[in-house]
Amino acid sequence: MQFNEYYHGRTGLTVGVKKVLFSESTPYQKVEVFETDTWGNMMTIDGMVMLSEKDEFVYHEMLVHVAMFSHPDPKRVLIIGGGDGGSAREVLRHPGVEQVDMVEIDEAVVRAARQFLPDVGDFDNPRLKVYYEDGITFVNNISDPYDVIIIDGSDPVGPAIDLFSDSFYKSCYRALGPDGVLTSQTESPWVASYHSGIRKLFHSLDSIFELSAMYLAFIPLYPSGMWSLAFASKGIHPHDPEVLDRVARGTTAMNSSLRYYNPDIHKGAFALPGFVKDILR
Amino acid sequence: MQFNEYYHGRTGLTVGVKKVLFSESTPYQKVEVFETDTWGNMMTIDGMVMLSEKDEFVYHEMLVHVAMFSHPDPKRVLIIGGGDGGSAREVLRHPGVEQVDMVEIDEAVVRAARQFLPDVGDFDNPRLKVYYEDGITFVNNISDPYDVIIIDGSDPVGPAIDLFSDSFYKSCYRALGPDGVLTSQTESPWVASYHSGIRKLFHSLDSIFELSAMYLAFIPLYPSGMWSLAFASKGIHPHDPEVLDRVARGTTAMNSSLRYYNPDIHKGAFALPGFVKDILR
Repeated sequence: MQFNEYYHGRTGLTVGVKKVLFSESTPYQKVEVFETDTWGNMMTIDGMVMLSEKDEFVYHEMLVHVAMFSHPDPKRVLIIGGGDGGSAREVLRHPGVEQVDMVEIDEAVVRAARQFLPDVGDFDNPRLKVYYEDGITFVNNISDPYDVIIIDGSDPVGPAIDLFSDSFYKSCYRALGPDGVLTSQTESPWVASYHSGIRKLFHSLDSIFELSAMYLAFIPLYPSGMWSLAFASKGIHPHDPEVLDRVARGTTAMNSSLRYYNPDIHKGAFALPGFVKDILR
Repeated sequence: MQFNEYYHGRTGLTVGVKKVLFSESTPYQKVEVFETDTWGNMMTIDGMVMLSEKDEFVYHEMLVHVAMFSHPDPKRVLIIGGGDGGSAREVLRHPGVEQVDMVEIDEAVVRAARQFLPDVGDFDNPRLKVYYEDGITFVNNISDPYDVIIIDGSDPVGPAIDLFSDSFYKSCYRALGPDGVLTSQTESPWVASYHSGIRKLFHSLDSIFELSAMYLAFIPLYPSGMWSLAFASKGIHPHDPEVLDRVARGTTAMNSSLRYYNPDIHKGAFALPGFVKDILR
Protein backbone atom coordinates (compact mmCIF):
# COMPACT_ATOMS: atom_id res chain seq x y z
CA MET A 1 0.00 0.00 0.00
CA GLN A 2 1.21 3.47 -0.85
CA PHE A 3 0.37 6.91 0.57
CA ASN A 4 0.54 9.82 -1.90
CA GLU A 5 0.37 13.56 -1.34
CA TYR A 6 0.56 15.85 -4.37
CA TYR A 7 1.55 19.49 -4.06
CA HIS A 8 2.39 20.83 -7.51
CA GLY A 9 0.45 19.31 -10.36
CA ARG A 10 1.12 15.60 -10.03
CA THR A 11 4.38 16.16 -8.14
CA GLY A 12 4.46 14.89 -4.62
CA LEU A 13 5.49 12.49 -1.97
CA THR A 14 4.96 8.76 -1.94
CA VAL A 15 5.38 6.71 1.25
CA GLY A 16 5.18 2.97 1.69
CA VAL A 17 2.41 1.99 4.12
CA LYS A 18 2.12 -1.29 5.96
CA LYS A 19 -1.17 -0.75 7.74
CA VAL A 20 -3.88 1.83 8.52
CA LEU A 21 -3.86 2.19 12.31
CA PHE A 22 -6.46 4.92 12.73
CA SER A 23 -8.99 6.49 10.39
CA GLU A 24 -11.78 8.75 11.58
CA SER A 25 -13.86 11.42 9.89
CA THR A 26 -14.40 13.92 12.67
CA PRO A 27 -16.67 16.99 12.52
CA TYR A 28 -13.60 18.92 11.35
CA GLN A 29 -11.45 16.72 9.14
CA LYS A 30 -10.28 13.21 8.33
CA VAL A 31 -7.60 12.06 10.77
CA GLU A 32 -5.50 9.02 9.86
CA VAL A 33 -2.46 7.24 11.26
CA PHE A 34 -0.47 4.84 9.07
CA GLU A 35 2.24 2.40 9.96
CA THR A 36 4.88 3.18 7.31
CA ASP A 37 7.75 1.04 6.11
CA THR A 38 10.55 3.43 7.13
CA TRP A 39 9.24 6.47 9.09
CA GLY A 40 7.49 4.77 11.99
CA ASN A 41 3.86 5.78 12.42
CA MET A 42 2.68 8.76 10.39
CA MET A 43 -0.35 10.99 10.97
CA THR A 44 -2.20 12.69 8.13
CA ILE A 45 -5.09 15.17 8.17
CA ASP A 46 -7.28 15.37 5.08
CA GLY A 47 -4.62 13.48 3.17
CA MET A 48 -1.74 15.80 4.15
CA VAL A 49 1.20 14.55 6.22
CA MET A 50 1.33 16.17 9.67
CA LEU A 51 4.20 14.19 11.16
CA SER A 52 5.96 10.86 11.34
CA GLU A 53 7.76 9.45 14.36
CA LYS A 54 11.10 9.66 12.53
CA ASP A 55 11.00 13.24 11.24
CA GLU A 56 8.74 15.13 13.67
CA PHE A 57 11.71 16.41 15.67
CA VAL A 58 12.59 18.90 12.93
CA TYR A 59 9.23 20.63 12.83
CA HIS A 60 8.68 20.68 16.59
CA GLU A 61 12.18 21.80 17.56
CA MET A 62 12.15 24.57 14.96
CA LEU A 63 8.63 25.83 15.69
CA VAL A 64 9.20 25.88 19.45
CA HIS A 65 12.80 26.68 20.38
CA VAL A 66 13.24 29.67 18.07
CA ALA A 67 10.34 31.28 19.96
CA MET A 68 11.18 30.02 23.45
CA PHE A 69 14.82 31.12 23.48
CA SER A 70 13.93 34.50 21.98
CA HIS A 71 11.71 35.38 24.94
CA PRO A 72 13.80 36.38 28.01
CA ASP A 73 11.85 34.24 30.51
CA PRO A 74 8.85 32.36 29.13
CA LYS A 75 6.56 31.12 31.92
CA ARG A 76 3.12 31.02 30.27
CA VAL A 77 2.93 29.46 26.81
CA LEU A 78 -0.07 29.01 24.54
CA ILE A 79 -0.17 26.45 21.73
CA ILE A 80 -2.94 26.72 19.14
CA GLY A 81 -3.47 23.35 17.49
CA GLY A 82 -0.58 20.97 18.01
CA GLY A 83 -2.83 18.05 18.98
CA ASP A 84 -0.11 15.48 18.35
CA GLY A 85 1.65 16.83 21.44
CA GLY A 86 5.09 17.39 19.94
CA SER A 87 5.14 21.17 20.32
CA ALA A 88 4.05 20.97 23.96
CA ARG A 89 6.76 18.38 24.62
CA GLU A 90 9.46 20.75 23.32
CA VAL A 91 8.02 23.71 25.27
CA LEU A 92 8.03 21.64 28.46
CA ARG A 93 11.77 21.02 28.05
CA HIS A 94 12.29 24.64 29.09
CA PRO A 95 12.56 24.41 32.87
CA GLY A 96 11.23 27.94 33.54
CA VAL A 97 7.86 27.18 31.96
CA GLU A 98 5.05 27.12 34.53
CA GLN A 99 1.97 26.64 32.37
CA VAL A 100 1.32 25.38 28.85
CA ASP A 101 -2.19 25.77 27.49
CA MET A 102 -2.84 23.80 24.34
CA VAL A 103 -6.01 24.54 22.39
CA GLU A 104 -6.84 21.78 19.93
CA ILE A 105 -10.18 21.95 18.16
CA ASP A 106 -10.29 18.22 17.39
CA GLU A 107 -10.00 15.76 20.27
CA ALA A 108 -9.59 12.92 17.76
CA VAL A 109 -6.10 14.23 16.93
CA VAL A 110 -5.02 13.94 20.56
CA ARG A 111 -6.72 10.56 20.94
CA ALA A 112 -5.00 9.18 17.83
CA ALA A 113 -1.63 10.61 18.87
CA ARG A 114 -1.82 9.25 22.44
CA GLN A 115 -2.56 5.80 21.08
CA PHE A 116 -0.37 5.58 17.99
CA LEU A 117 2.35 8.24 18.47
CA PRO A 118 2.95 7.62 22.19
CA ASP A 119 6.50 9.03 22.23
CA VAL A 120 5.58 12.33 20.56
CA GLY A 121 3.51 13.91 23.34
CA ASP A 122 4.03 14.53 27.05
CA PHE A 123 0.31 14.73 27.80
CA ASP A 124 0.49 13.71 31.45
CA ASN A 125 2.87 16.51 32.34
CA PRO A 126 1.18 18.48 35.16
CA ARG A 127 2.25 21.80 33.60
CA LEU A 128 0.21 21.04 30.44
CA LYS A 129 -3.51 21.72 30.12
CA VAL A 130 -5.40 20.73 26.97
CA TYR A 131 -8.57 22.57 25.87
CA TYR A 132 -10.76 21.10 23.15
CA GLU A 133 -11.98 24.41 21.81
CA ASP A 134 -11.81 26.70 18.82
CA GLY A 135 -8.44 28.49 18.95
CA ILE A 136 -9.79 31.77 17.57
CA THR A 137 -12.45 32.07 20.28
CA PHE A 138 -9.96 31.05 22.95
CA VAL A 139 -7.48 33.75 21.94
CA ASN A 140 -10.23 36.40 21.73
CA ASN A 141 -11.15 35.71 25.37
CA ILE A 142 -7.68 35.75 26.92
CA SER A 143 -7.33 38.10 29.88
CA ASP A 144 -4.08 36.88 31.44
CA PRO A 145 -1.36 37.42 28.82
CA TYR A 146 1.03 34.75 27.52
CA ASP A 147 4.76 35.08 26.99
CA VAL A 148 4.89 32.91 23.88
CA ILE A 149 2.19 31.80 21.43
CA ILE A 150 2.90 28.89 19.11
CA ILE A 151 0.52 28.38 16.21
CA ASP A 152 0.76 24.74 15.24
CA GLY A 153 -2.15 24.45 12.84
CA SER A 154 -2.65 22.20 9.86
CA ASP A 155 -2.70 23.60 6.32
CA PRO A 156 -4.87 26.63 5.54
CA VAL A 157 -7.55 24.64 3.73
CA GLY A 158 -9.52 22.98 6.56
CA PRO A 159 -10.50 24.16 10.05
CA ALA A 160 -7.11 25.89 10.38
CA ILE A 161 -7.84 28.47 7.69
CA ASP A 162 -8.71 31.28 10.13
CA LEU A 163 -5.37 30.75 11.88
CA PHE A 164 -3.86 32.51 8.86
CA SER A 165 -6.04 35.64 9.11
CA ASP A 166 -5.25 39.23 9.97
CA SER A 167 -7.83 39.39 12.77
CA PHE A 168 -6.41 36.28 14.43
CA TYR A 169 -2.89 37.76 14.52
CA LYS A 170 -4.31 40.95 16.04
CA SER A 171 -5.91 38.87 18.80
CA CYS A 172 -2.61 37.06 19.34
CA TYR A 173 -0.81 40.40 19.65
CA ARG A 174 -3.29 41.53 22.33
CA ALA A 175 -2.93 38.18 24.15
CA LEU A 176 0.85 38.52 24.42
CA GLY A 177 2.79 40.21 27.23
CA PRO A 178 5.28 43.04 26.63
CA ASP A 179 8.14 40.72 25.52
CA GLY A 180 5.72 38.56 23.56
CA VAL A 181 6.92 36.21 20.85
CA LEU A 182 4.89 34.20 18.34
CA THR A 183 5.81 31.48 15.85
CA SER A 184 3.68 29.73 13.25
CA GLN A 185 4.10 27.24 10.43
CA THR A 186 3.60 28.95 7.08
CA GLU A 187 3.74 26.33 4.29
CA SER A 188 6.31 25.62 1.58
CA PRO A 189 7.75 28.39 -0.60
CA TRP A 190 7.89 25.85 -3.46
CA VAL A 191 4.10 25.49 -3.56
CA ALA A 192 3.04 28.22 -5.98
CA SER A 193 -0.59 28.12 -4.93
CA TYR A 194 0.37 29.29 -1.42
CA HIS A 195 2.54 32.23 -2.53
CA SER A 196 -0.13 34.90 -2.26
CA GLY A 197 -1.24 33.50 1.11
CA ILE A 198 2.32 33.49 2.44
CA ARG A 199 2.87 37.07 1.25
CA LYS A 200 -0.41 38.25 2.84
CA LEU A 201 0.42 36.50 6.09
CA PHE A 202 3.85 38.10 6.43
CA HIS A 203 2.49 41.51 5.48
CA SER A 204 -0.13 41.05 8.23
CA LEU A 205 2.47 40.09 10.81
CA ASP A 206 4.64 42.97 9.69
CA SER A 207 1.85 45.50 10.16
CA ILE A 208 0.65 44.12 13.50
CA PHE A 209 3.91 43.21 15.27
CA GLU A 210 6.97 45.36 15.87
CA LEU A 211 9.09 42.72 14.14
CA SER A 212 8.52 39.69 11.93
CA ALA A 213 10.69 37.36 9.87
CA MET A 214 10.51 34.10 7.96
CA TYR A 215 12.75 31.16 8.69
CA LEU A 216 13.17 27.75 7.08
CA ALA A 217 13.59 24.08 7.97
CA PHE A 218 14.24 20.87 6.03
CA ILE A 219 11.23 18.57 6.59
CA PRO A 220 11.43 15.50 4.35
CA LEU A 221 7.76 14.45 4.54
CA TYR A 222 6.33 17.92 3.86
CA PRO A 223 5.77 19.08 0.27
CA SER A 224 9.14 19.85 -1.42
CA GLY A 225 11.07 19.28 1.82
CA MET A 226 11.40 23.06 2.35
CA TRP A 227 9.18 24.47 5.05
CA SER A 228 8.73 28.08 6.11
CA LEU A 229 7.89 29.34 9.57
CA ALA A 230 7.03 32.78 10.86
CA PHE A 231 8.61 34.58 13.80
CA ALA A 232 6.92 37.70 15.19
CA SER A 233 7.58 39.70 18.34
CA LYS A 234 6.93 42.94 20.19
CA GLY A 235 10.50 44.02 19.57
CA ILE A 236 12.85 41.14 20.33
CA HIS A 237 14.96 40.17 17.32
CA PRO A 238 15.89 36.47 17.18
CA HIS A 239 19.52 37.51 16.58
CA ASP A 240 19.79 40.01 19.44
CA PRO A 241 22.98 39.28 21.39
CA GLU A 242 20.99 38.40 24.55
CA VAL A 243 18.94 35.90 22.54
CA LEU A 244 22.04 34.29 21.02
CA ASP A 245 23.49 34.06 24.50
CA ARG A 246 20.35 32.30 25.78
CA VAL A 247 20.41 29.94 22.79
CA ALA A 248 24.04 29.02 23.46
CA ARG A 249 23.47 28.39 27.17
CA GLY A 250 20.07 26.75 26.73
CA THR A 251 21.05 24.32 24.01
CA THR A 252 24.12 23.28 26.00
CA ALA A 253 21.87 22.57 28.98
CA MET A 254 19.48 20.52 26.82
CA ASN A 255 22.47 18.67 25.41
CA SER A 256 21.69 15.61 23.38
CA SER A 257 17.89 15.87 23.47
CA LEU A 258 18.03 18.23 20.47
CA ARG A 259 18.47 16.62 17.08
CA TYR A 260 17.99 19.56 14.67
CA TYR A 261 18.00 22.92 16.47
CA ASN A 262 21.30 24.41 17.66
CA PRO A 263 22.92 27.88 17.80
CA ASP A 264 24.12 27.74 14.17
CA ILE A 265 20.67 26.72 12.97
CA HIS A 266 19.01 29.44 15.09
CA LYS A 267 20.97 31.97 13.02
CA GLY A 268 21.22 30.19 9.66
CA ALA A 269 17.53 29.30 9.38
CA PHE A 270 16.70 32.97 8.81
CA ALA A 271 18.83 33.10 5.63
CA LEU A 272 16.35 33.15 2.75
CA PRO A 273 17.05 32.27 -0.90
CA GLY A 274 16.32 35.01 -3.41
CA PHE A 275 13.21 33.35 -4.81
CA VAL A 276 11.77 33.13 -1.28
CA LYS A 277 12.48 36.81 -0.58
CA ASP A 278 10.67 37.58 -3.83
CA ILE A 279 7.54 35.82 -2.54
CA LEU A 280 7.50 38.12 0.48
CA ARG A 281 7.70 41.35 -1.55
CA MET B 1 2.30 8.89 -16.80
CA GLN B 2 4.20 9.16 -13.56
CA PHE B 3 7.93 9.21 -12.75
CA ASN B 4 8.90 7.71 -9.38
CA GLU B 5 12.20 7.77 -7.51
CA TYR B 6 12.42 5.98 -4.17
CA TYR B 7 15.10 6.81 -1.62
CA HIS B 8 14.11 5.30 1.72
CA GLY B 9 12.15 2.06 1.54
CA ARG B 10 9.15 2.95 -0.59
CA THR B 11 9.41 6.66 0.25
CA GLY B 12 10.15 8.91 -2.64
CA LEU B 13 9.23 11.47 -5.18
CA THR B 14 6.49 11.23 -7.75
CA VAL B 15 6.35 13.61 -10.74
CA GLY B 16 3.67 13.88 -13.41
CA VAL B 17 5.10 13.22 -16.86
CA LYS B 18 3.55 14.24 -20.16
CA LYS B 19 6.04 12.73 -22.56
CA VAL B 20 9.40 10.96 -22.82
CA LEU B 21 11.60 13.27 -24.90
CA PHE B 22 14.88 11.35 -24.78
CA SER B 23 15.83 7.87 -23.67
CA GLU B 24 19.17 6.29 -24.41
CA SER B 25 21.15 3.51 -22.81
CA THR B 26 24.73 4.69 -23.23
CA PRO B 27 27.89 2.68 -22.41
CA TYR B 28 27.74 4.32 -18.97
CA GLN B 29 24.13 4.75 -17.89
CA LYS B 30 20.55 5.32 -18.94
CA VAL B 31 19.91 8.97 -19.79
CA GLU B 32 16.33 10.20 -20.03
CA VAL B 33 14.56 13.53 -20.43
CA PHE B 34 10.87 13.86 -19.59
CA GLU B 35 8.45 16.65 -20.26
CA THR B 36 6.79 17.08 -16.84
CA ASP B 37 3.49 18.69 -15.97
CA THR B 38 4.92 21.43 -13.72
CA TRP B 39 8.75 21.47 -13.71
CA GLY B 40 9.48 21.93 -17.39
CA ASN B 41 11.78 19.29 -18.86
CA MET B 42 13.52 17.00 -16.39
CA MET B 43 16.65 14.87 -16.91
CA THR B 44 17.19 11.60 -15.07
CA ILE B 45 20.17 9.24 -15.03
CA ASP B 46 19.56 5.61 -14.14
CA GLY B 47 16.15 6.62 -12.80
CA MET B 48 17.47 9.39 -10.52
CA VAL B 49 16.50 13.03 -11.06
CA MET B 50 19.47 15.18 -12.08
CA LEU B 51 17.65 18.45 -12.76
CA SER B 52 14.49 20.08 -14.02
CA GLU B 53 14.29 23.40 -15.82
CA LYS B 54 12.36 24.91 -12.88
CA ASP B 55 14.55 23.90 -9.95
CA GLU B 56 18.07 23.53 -11.41
CA PHE B 57 19.06 27.04 -10.37
CA VAL B 58 19.32 25.95 -6.73
CA TYR B 59 21.80 23.16 -7.29
CA HIS B 60 23.95 25.02 -9.82
CA GLU B 61 24.09 28.33 -7.96
CA MET B 62 24.97 26.60 -4.70
CA LEU B 63 27.56 24.23 -6.13
CA VAL B 64 29.31 26.98 -8.10
CA HIS B 65 29.13 30.35 -6.35
CA VAL B 66 30.17 29.15 -2.90
CA ALA B 67 33.41 27.96 -4.53
CA MET B 68 33.88 30.82 -7.00
CA PHE B 69 33.50 33.66 -4.50
CA SER B 70 35.70 31.90 -1.96
CA HIS B 71 38.68 31.94 -4.34
CA PRO B 72 40.28 35.42 -4.54
CA ASP B 73 40.51 35.49 -8.35
CA PRO B 74 39.41 32.35 -10.19
CA LYS B 75 40.64 32.32 -13.78
CA ARG B 76 40.94 28.61 -14.57
CA VAL B 77 38.03 26.39 -13.54
CA LEU B 78 37.59 22.65 -13.95
CA ILE B 79 34.19 20.96 -13.87
CA ILE B 80 34.07 17.18 -13.53
CA GLY B 81 30.75 15.88 -14.85
CA GLY B 82 28.12 18.58 -15.18
CA GLY B 83 27.11 17.53 -18.69
CA ASP B 84 23.80 19.38 -18.50
CA GLY B 85 25.83 22.61 -18.66
CA GLY B 86 24.29 24.39 -15.66
CA SER B 87 27.45 24.49 -13.56
CA ALA B 88 29.51 25.88 -16.46
CA ARG B 89 26.85 28.54 -17.07
CA GLU B 90 27.11 29.76 -13.46
CA VAL B 91 30.94 29.69 -13.54
CA LEU B 92 30.91 31.76 -16.76
CA ARG B 93 28.89 34.47 -15.02
CA HIS B 94 32.09 35.38 -13.15
CA PRO B 95 33.74 37.92 -15.46
CA GLY B 96 37.30 37.14 -14.36
CA VAL B 97 37.10 33.54 -15.58
CA GLU B 98 39.33 32.90 -18.59
CA GLN B 99 38.95 29.18 -19.13
CA VAL B 100 36.42 26.56 -18.08
CA ASP B 101 37.25 22.94 -18.80
CA MET B 102 34.36 20.56 -18.43
CA VAL B 103 35.07 16.83 -18.39
CA GLU B 104 31.93 14.79 -18.99
CA ILE B 105 32.35 11.06 -19.50
CA ASP B 106 29.07 10.64 -21.38
CA GLU B 107 28.48 12.76 -24.50
CA ALA B 108 24.83 11.66 -24.51
CA VAL B 109 24.21 13.85 -21.43
CA VAL B 110 25.43 16.93 -23.28
CA ARG B 111 23.55 15.98 -26.43
CA ALA B 112 20.29 15.48 -24.53
CA ALA B 113 20.79 18.72 -22.59
CA ARG B 114 21.56 20.81 -25.67
CA GLN B 115 18.42 19.54 -27.35
CA PHE B 116 15.92 19.39 -24.50
CA LEU B 117 17.31 21.71 -21.79
CA PRO B 118 18.48 24.49 -24.10
CA ASP B 119 18.35 27.25 -21.47
CA VAL B 120 20.45 25.36 -18.91
CA GLY B 121 23.81 25.39 -20.66
CA ASP B 122 25.98 28.03 -22.28
CA PHE B 123 27.83 25.55 -24.50
CA ASP B 124 28.79 27.97 -27.25
CA ASN B 125 30.64 30.28 -24.89
CA PRO B 126 34.20 30.60 -26.23
CA ARG B 127 35.66 30.35 -22.71
CA LEU B 128 34.17 26.84 -22.27
CA LYS B 129 35.84 23.67 -23.53
CA VAL B 130 34.14 20.29 -23.19
CA TYR B 131 36.15 17.05 -22.99
CA TYR B 132 34.39 13.69 -23.34
CA GLU B 133 36.76 11.77 -21.11
CA ASP B 134 36.99 10.00 -17.81
CA GLY B 135 37.29 12.66 -15.09
CA ILE B 136 39.67 10.60 -12.94
CA THR B 137 42.20 10.15 -15.74
CA PHE B 138 41.88 13.79 -16.73
CA VAL B 139 42.62 15.00 -13.21
CA ASN B 140 45.55 12.60 -12.84
CA ASN B 141 47.17 14.14 -15.94
CA ILE B 142 46.77 17.83 -15.10
CA SER B 143 50.02 19.83 -15.31
CA ASP B 144 48.67 23.40 -15.35
CA PRO B 145 46.83 23.91 -12.04
CA TYR B 146 43.23 25.11 -11.70
CA ASP B 147 41.92 27.72 -9.28
CA VAL B 148 38.60 26.00 -8.66
CA ILE B 149 37.42 22.41 -9.21
CA ILE B 150 33.70 21.68 -9.22
CA ILE B 151 32.67 18.04 -8.97
CA ASP B 152 29.23 17.79 -10.48
CA GLY B 153 28.80 14.04 -10.68
CA SER B 154 25.71 11.90 -10.49
CA ASP B 155 25.03 9.62 -7.52
CA PRO B 156 27.80 7.31 -6.29
CA VAL B 157 26.25 4.17 -7.75
CA GLY B 158 27.07 4.41 -11.49
CA PRO B 159 30.12 5.74 -13.36
CA ALA B 160 30.45 8.56 -10.80
CA ILE B 161 31.38 6.21 -7.95
CA ASP B 162 35.13 6.91 -8.16
CA LEU B 163 34.42 10.65 -7.85
CA PHE B 164 33.77 9.92 -4.18
CA SER B 165 37.10 8.22 -3.52
CA ASP B 166 40.10 9.22 -1.45
CA SER B 167 42.56 8.89 -4.34
CA PHE B 168 40.45 11.16 -6.55
CA TYR B 169 40.42 13.92 -3.91
CA LYS B 170 44.20 13.60 -3.59
CA SER B 171 44.51 14.12 -7.37
CA CYS B 172 42.21 17.13 -7.14
CA TYR B 173 44.36 18.59 -4.37
CA ARG B 174 47.47 18.23 -6.56
CA ALA B 175 45.62 19.77 -9.53
CA LEU B 176 44.69 22.92 -7.57
CA GLY B 177 46.76 26.09 -7.28
CA PRO B 178 47.82 27.56 -3.92
CA ASP B 179 44.43 29.24 -3.21
CA GLY B 180 42.59 26.22 -4.59
CA VAL B 181 38.94 25.60 -3.76
CA LEU B 182 36.82 22.55 -4.50
CA THR B 183 33.09 21.86 -4.17
CA SER B 184 31.15 18.65 -4.76
CA GLN B 185 27.61 17.36 -4.36
CA THR B 186 27.44 14.85 -1.52
CA GLU B 187 23.92 13.35 -1.38
CA SER B 188 21.09 13.76 1.14
CA PRO B 189 21.67 13.43 4.88
CA TRP B 190 18.18 11.89 5.14
CA VAL B 191 19.18 8.86 3.06
CA ALA B 192 20.47 6.43 5.68
CA SER B 193 22.19 4.19 3.14
CA TYR B 194 24.54 7.06 2.22
CA HIS B 195 25.54 7.96 5.79
CA SER B 196 28.73 5.92 5.92
CA GLY B 197 29.71 7.17 2.46
CA ILE B 198 29.13 10.81 3.43
CA ARG B 199 31.16 10.35 6.62
CA LYS B 200 34.02 8.70 4.73
CA LEU B 201 34.01 11.41 2.08
CA PHE B 202 34.25 14.26 4.60
CA HIS B 203 36.92 12.45 6.58
CA SER B 204 38.88 12.10 3.31
CA LEU B 205 38.51 15.79 2.47
CA ASP B 206 39.44 16.68 6.02
CA SER B 207 42.65 14.66 5.87
CA ILE B 208 43.68 15.83 2.38
CA PHE B 209 42.71 19.52 2.38
CA GLU B 210 43.63 22.22 4.89
CA LEU B 211 39.93 22.95 5.40
CA SER B 212 36.63 21.26 4.59
CA ALA B 213 32.99 21.79 5.50
CA MET B 214 29.52 20.62 4.57
CA TYR B 215 26.77 22.97 3.47
CA LEU B 216 23.13 22.45 2.57
CA ALA B 217 20.55 23.48 -0.01
CA PHE B 218 16.81 22.91 -0.48
CA ILE B 219 16.33 20.99 -3.75
CA PRO B 220 12.72 19.91 -4.19
CA LEU B 221 13.26 17.17 -6.79
CA TYR B 222 16.15 15.48 -4.98
CA PRO B 223 15.45 12.79 -2.37
CA SER B 224 14.03 14.37 0.82
CA GLY B 225 14.54 17.92 -0.50
CA MET B 226 17.66 18.33 1.66
CA TRP B 227 20.92 18.18 -0.24
CA SER B 228 24.45 18.33 1.12
CA LEU B 229 27.51 19.75 -0.65
CA ALA B 230 31.17 19.72 0.26
CA PHE B 231 33.51 22.69 0.37
CA ALA B 232 37.26 22.08 0.58
CA SER B 233 40.20 24.44 0.22
CA LYS B 234 43.92 24.93 0.76
CA GLY B 235 43.21 27.34 3.60
CA ILE B 236 40.49 29.76 2.57
CA HIS B 237 37.46 29.62 4.88
CA PRO B 238 34.15 30.43 3.15
CA HIS B 239 33.38 32.86 5.98
CA ASP B 240 36.70 34.73 5.91
CA PRO B 241 36.01 38.48 5.90
CA GLU B 242 37.61 38.89 2.43
CA VAL B 243 35.34 36.14 1.09
CA LEU B 244 32.22 37.71 2.58
CA ASP B 245 33.27 41.00 1.05
CA ARG B 246 33.65 39.40 -2.39
CA VAL B 247 30.26 37.69 -1.99
CA ALA B 248 28.58 41.00 -1.13
CA ARG B 249 30.16 42.86 -4.05
CA GLY B 250 29.84 39.99 -6.51
CA THR B 251 26.18 39.19 -5.85
CA THR B 252 25.30 42.88 -6.13
CA ALA B 253 27.04 42.97 -9.53
CA MET B 254 25.18 39.84 -10.68
CA ASN B 255 21.98 41.41 -9.44
CA SER B 256 18.80 39.65 -10.47
CA SER B 257 20.38 36.73 -12.29
CA LEU B 258 20.68 34.89 -8.95
CA ARG B 259 17.54 33.22 -7.65
CA TYR B 260 18.82 31.23 -4.66
CA TYR B 261 22.37 32.21 -3.67
CA ASN B 262 22.98 35.49 -1.83
CA PRO B 263 25.23 36.70 1.05
CA ASP B 264 22.85 35.42 3.77
CA ILE B 265 22.67 32.00 2.12
CA HIS B 266 26.46 31.88 1.68
CA LYS B 267 26.71 32.06 5.47
CA GLY B 268 23.52 30.27 6.55
CA ALA B 269 24.00 27.23 4.30
CA PHE B 270 26.88 26.06 6.49
CA ALA B 271 24.63 25.80 9.58
CA LEU B 272 24.09 22.07 10.10
CA PRO B 273 21.32 20.43 12.13
CA GLY B 274 22.45 18.20 14.97
CA PHE B 275 21.52 14.96 13.23
CA VAL B 276 23.65 15.99 10.24
CA LYS B 277 26.65 16.83 12.43
CA ASP B 278 26.24 13.37 13.96
CA ILE B 279 26.61 11.75 10.52
CA LEU B 280 29.97 13.49 10.07
CA ARG B 281 31.42 12.30 13.40
